[in-house]
Amino acid sequence: MARVTARRSVVRIDTSAGQQPTRRPDSLAAEEPLEIRVDRSALAVTMRTPGNDIDLALGFLLTEGIIGSSEDVRTAQLCAGTDTPNTYNVVDVVLTPGVPAPVTDPSRNFYTTSSCGVCGKASIDAVRTRSRFPVDQDPAKVDATTLVTLPDTLRKAQRTFETTGGLHAAGLFTTDGRLLVIREDVGRHNAVDKVVGWGLREGRLPLAGQVLLVSGRASFELVQKASMAGISIIAAVSAPSTLAVELAEEVGLTVVGFLRGTTMNVYTRPDRVV
Amino acid sequence: MARVTARRSVVRIDTSAGQQPTRRPDSLAAEEPLEIRVDRSALAVTMRTPGNDIDLALGFLLTEGIIGSSEDVRTAQLCAGTDTPNTYNVVDVVLTPGVPAPVTDPSRNFYTTSSCGVCGKASIDAVRTRSRFPVDQDPAKVDATTLVTLPDTLRKAQRTFETTGGLHAAGLFTTDGRLLVIREDVGRHNAVDKVVGWGLREGRLPLAGQVLLVSGRASFELVQKASMAGISIIAAVSAPSTLAVELAEEVGLTVVGFLRGTTMNVYTRPDRVV
Repeated sequence: MARVTARRSVVRIDTSAGQQPTRRPDSLAAEEPLEIRVDRSALAVTMRTPGNDIDLALGFLLTEGIIGSSEDVRTAQLCAGTDTPNTYNVVDVVLTPGVPAPVTDPSRNFYTTSSCGVCGKASIDAVRTRSRFPVDQDPAKVDATTLVTLPDTLRKAQRTFETTGGLHAAGLFTTDGRLLVIREDVGRHNAVDKVVGWGLREGRLPLAGQVLLVSGRASFELVQKASMAGISIIAAVSAPSTLAVELAEEVGLTVVGFLRGTTMNVYTRPDRVV
Repeated sequence: MARVTARRSVVRIDTSAGQQPTRRPDSLAAEEPLEIRVDRSALAVTMRTPGNDIDLALGFLLTEGIIGSSEDVRTAQLCAGTDTPNTYNVVDVVLTPGVPAPVTDPSRNFYTTSSCGVCGKASIDAVRTRSRFPVDQDPAKVDATTLVTLPDTLRKAQRTFETTGGLHAAGLFTTDGRLLVIREDVGRHNAVDKVVGWGLREGRLPLAGQVLLVSGRASFELVQKASMAGISIIAAVSAPSTLAVELAEEVGLTVVGFLRGTTMNVYTRPDRVV
């Protein structure tokens, strides 16, 4: 099976007076490339922490708008890689006949003029057009007193972070603060894709009425992924970006940032935080 | 000119007893797509913080092995976008005649077998083969007492982080602790590409004899970028990944992690830390 961590000998240095360097073992978060293939063609390679790879591939395909439900997928399987120990670094997805193959233009997520332009506003329009779930109509509400408990719950559920200090986490919570699923990864986007892929596989899409918590910042792509999965509330321990907030406003998604201690900033749709 | 931050009204909530939600302005880190075009063809779109975009494009092309020096570039220019205010979201690079056009296979960075395999070891081999600079032969050494001062220097030079709390930083230092250049970005990789692009434009490649400090984790791709630019010492405030350390070991690059307070872990080539 795939390795999630690996032990390694490191030199520990402390420049405080009288301390000598020491050799000691340290746990590292595993990072391996995963190639996502659709109908036998390589679509993307992402650097990820091995584990839940089928979910990662399905979540990626859903949040990229390539599939809309599990019915669009005929088979999805993890192939053996060439490493020793085997790291299983390819997921092969075969689409149901009739589902259009993905377009592999690197600028596919963005509106590009024929002259010279790609812009944030057009990117937002592209996401809004593709999303199949009306996030703005989700009547979900969450208590601020519940929100402030989520980071602690997420952190306690993070198994690998504790040993390696090196992983991002994404957790899906009910609006009364119960953790439904947590995924950890060296990549923030991958952690969210794994959560979304889990939802797809469990037949839970759209993920309305729930809260997605991410351990770091809220970027455009994380809000995009939430929107594509029908999630209407995303909370981040750190800051959101301008484009993340603009996209959230456009699709009617609630963005909470700097969720720390007893405080938070609500950037969009504050009516969902009571 | 491009916006680096934007002001926005947010609802601040504090669940401590007796606190009422307040509306107040907040500064957000700007995030916009940048399309990198080579000889008029879109090669990649990256979400980045506007600013130093030519450096970002050049650094990206160098660390992807598409160009090897500034002589491989005939022109590099920022094109106007379609946003109001204009966000200049396309960089057009024209290669010098004779420089091969990039291969746009999404799995181009990784060795893929014809059957079913992409693996970390092959990815390491690919980087080692492509790098033009013999990182392992760099005689640079740095005092541990100097290293522990770098995070503070970087943090003090981070202008945008202070106002937004949302940016990654990469800084290039001399081995006696002097900051040569700092770049901030919503994307960790972009911050490093901007540093490398600066070095290319300034005629400083390879960036041997210097220390690259990154504000977060050290991933495979950051070590790859350092290696491609001839940097032999990379220090990170947080953890490295398994593949990052494996690549560093293979190319003879020193990786320092958890550089905090007076302590650090040295994962590879500890002979450069004295």
